[in-house]
Amino acid sequence: MRIALDAMGGDDAPLKIVEGGLQALKESDNRFELVLVGRNDEIEKELSKHSAAGLNYSVVNASEVIEMHETPNVAIKQKRDSSIVIGTNLHKERKVDAFVSAGNTGAFMAASTLMLGRVKGVGRPAVGTPLPTVNGTCFMIDSGANSDSRPQHLVEFGIMGSIYAKEIMKKDNPTVGLLNIGEESSKGNELAQASYPLLEKSGLNFVGNIEGRDIFAGKADVVLCDGFVGNIVLKFAESILPTLRTRFRAYAGGNPLKLAWAGLMGKTLKKVLKGFSYETQGGAPLLGVNGVPIIGHGSSSALAVKNMVLRAEEMVNHDIGKLIENSISKIENKAE
Amino acid sequence: MRIALDAMGGDDAPLKIVEGGLQALKESDNRFELVLVGRNDEIEKELSKHSAAGLNYSVVNASEVIEMHETPNVAIKQKRDSSIVIGTNLHKERKVDAFVSAGNTGAFMAASTLMLGRVKGVGRPAVGTPLPTVNGTCFMIDSGANSDSRPQHLVEFGIMGSIYAKEIMKKDNPTVGLLNIGEESSKGNELAQASYPLLEKSGLNFVGNIEGRDIFAGKADVVLCDGFVGNIVLKFAESILPTLRTRFRAYAGGNPLKLAWAGLMGKTLKKVLKGFSYETQGGAPLLGVNGVPIIGHGSSSALAVKNMVLRAEEMVNHDIGKLIENSISKIENKAE
Repeated sequence: MRIALDAMGGDDAPLKIVEGGLQALKESDNRFELVLVGRNDEIEKELSKHSAAGLNYSVVNASEVIEMHETPNVAIKQKRDSSIVIGTNLHKERKVDAFVSAGNTGAFMAASTLMLGRVKGVGRPAVGTPLPTVNGTCFMIDSGANSDSRPQHLVEFGIMGSIYAKEIMKKDNPTVGLLNIGEESSKGNELAQASYPLLEKSGLNFVGNIEGRDIFAGKADVVLCDGFVGNIVLKFAESILPTLRTRFRAYAGGNPLKLAWAGLMGKTLKKVLKGFSYETQGGAPLLGVNGVPIIGHGSSSALAVKNMVLRAEEMVNHDIGKLIENSISKIENKAE
Repeated sequence: MRIALDAMGGDDAPLKIVEGGLQALKESDNRFELVLVGRNDEIEKELSKHSAAGLNYSVVNASEVIEMHETPNVAIKQKRDSSIVIGTNLHKERKVDAFVSAGNTGAFMAASTLMLGRVKGVGRPAVGTPLPTVNGTCFMIDSGANSDSRPQHLVEFGIMGSIYAKEIMKKDNPTVGLLNIGEESSKGNELAQASYPLLEKSGLNFVGNIEGRDIFAGKADVVLCDGFVGNIVLKFAESILPTLRTRFRAYAGGNPLKLAWAGLMGKTLKKVLKGFSYETQGGAPLLGVNGVPIIGHGSSSALAVKNMVLRAEEMVNHDIGKLIENSISKIENKAE
C-alpha cells in the first residue's frame, strides 16, 4: 500500500507534516509506503531533522504550492505542478491508494472530485467529519462539500456515512439521524421535509430527526445534513476548545497563581475533553470519489497528520469506495 | 409598566417561574407590576412559600396549560384558556407591555405572531438569541422562528438584530456578519449568495461573511442566519455546558477524590465560562411583532426567569418595536 501525503499543505507545512508522516510510519512498523509530495529540497531538509533511515518513504517533487487563500478551481488549473495536483494525479493513476492533505480544502476537494471521478451511482461526493459525543464519536456528513443539496443527496450521504461508521468506527448497524429543528417529520426547511420520507424507506437505520443538542448527546451515529449547515456546525464545534483556551488565558491574566491553577486544570480538562480536538479524529474523508482523499485541518499538528495517515491506511484496507458502490446499487435496485 | 409572566410554562413551572419573577421584582424595587398568568391556586401556593408581601404583583387566572409536546397551532386554537393564550391576549390588548414564557416555544411564537401582529414593514418576525463570545456577547438572529427564509428577510433580521445590539447590548454601530461557509461574497448556498449584495447596500454595518468559528470569536455583534441554521447552532451551543458536565461526571466516576477535584474546578470553570449558560442571557426576544414577547428555555431556572423579566423591562423602556418600525421604513425609502 502507498499513501501520499501533501508535505506542503497546512499552516505548519512542511515541518509538522513530515514529522507526523514519519510518526505514522514508525507506529505502523512500515506497513505501507509513505509518499511525500512537495518541494524536494524543503522535504529533504525536514527529513534530515529526523532519524528517517529505514523508514518506508519516498519523495515525489512538486514545485508549486497552492496557498490557503487561493480560489480552488483557478488554482488547480493554473498550478499543475502543485503538491495537490501532483498528488491527486498519482492517486488517479493508482500509483498511490490514498492522499492526505491539510492544505487548501477547496482545492483539494475540487481536484479529488474532478480528477478521481465519482463512485458509480454517487451523485454528490461529501465530506464526513467525526465529532465527539458524551460517550464516543459520531460522524457528520456532509460537512462542507456541497452548499446546496437535494433530498436524494442526503440519502446518499446517509449510505456513505453508515459505511464509514460501520467499517471505521466499528458501529454495528449505525443509527442515522437527520439534523433538524424538531422531532416531528413535518419539521424543518423544505430540504429536511422532503428528505425525511426518502430516508424512511432507504433501508438505512434511520432514527428520525435529531436536533443540534443531540449531536454531542450521541443520539445518532451518523448525523445527516447538507454541507452548508454541516460546515457551519463543524467550524463552530472546532472553535469550542480554542474559545475555552482564550477564556482561560483571560481568567489567569498575568497572575502566576491563577496561571498555575489553570495549568493544573488543563491536565484534567484534556482527559475530560478527549475527542474534542480534531487532532485525534483522523481527518475528514471525502467520500464518494474513486480513491481515499482525507482532508486535514489547516493548522494540523504532527499528531493530527499521524492520525490521518493511519486512518487512510484503514480506509484503504476496508475498501470503502467499493462498499459504497455496492450499497448504492442495492438501494437503487430496491427503489426501482 | 406591567410585565406578564407565564407561570405555567417550563419544566419547573410554576415553582421556579414564580420564584424568579419575585426575584426580579425585589431586584428592581417594584419598578413594574408583575402579572403572573396561570392557575390561580397553583400560583397562590407558590407565592405562599415566599415573602411576597409588599411586592408589586397580580395574578390572572388561566385554567389550561399548553404542554411542551403539543402541536403549536392546534394547541393555541383549542386551549383558549391556557396561560399562553390568556397572557398574549393581555399583551394584545395592551394591558401588559411584555410577556415572558418558558413554555412551549412554538405555541408562544405562534400566539405572539398571530395575535399581536407584525410591526409595520416587517415581513417575518424572528427570534434573536444572545450567545457568548471570547470577550462578550453577540446576538444571533433568526434562531428559529422561520424554517425557510428569503434574502429580504435576512436584511430585516439584520435591522432588528442591530437595534437590539445597540439598545440592549450597548454596542455602538453594531457589526453585522452573514453566517456562511467562507469569506468571499460568492460563497455559500443560494440564500447566502443572494443575501450578500442586499446586505451590502442595506445601510447596516455589514462586515461580510463570517464562519462558524467566528461566532465565539466575536467577529460580529449580530450573527445573521436563517432560522433553520440558527436553531441548529443555538441548540448545539446550548449543549456545550451539559456535555462538559456529563463528561466531568464520567471522569470523576464514583471516585471521591476526583469528585472533589472536579468540584474545585467547577468554581473556576463557572467564571471562565461566564455567559455560556442561557440563564444569564435574558431569554430570546421575538422581534418584529407589536409587543415584547420573550422566549425562555424549557428548563429555565429562577435565575433565568429573573433575568428575562428584567430584560423585558429594558426592552419596553427602549421601545424596540418603534425603533424597528422606523428603521425598516427608512431602509425601504432608501431602496425606492
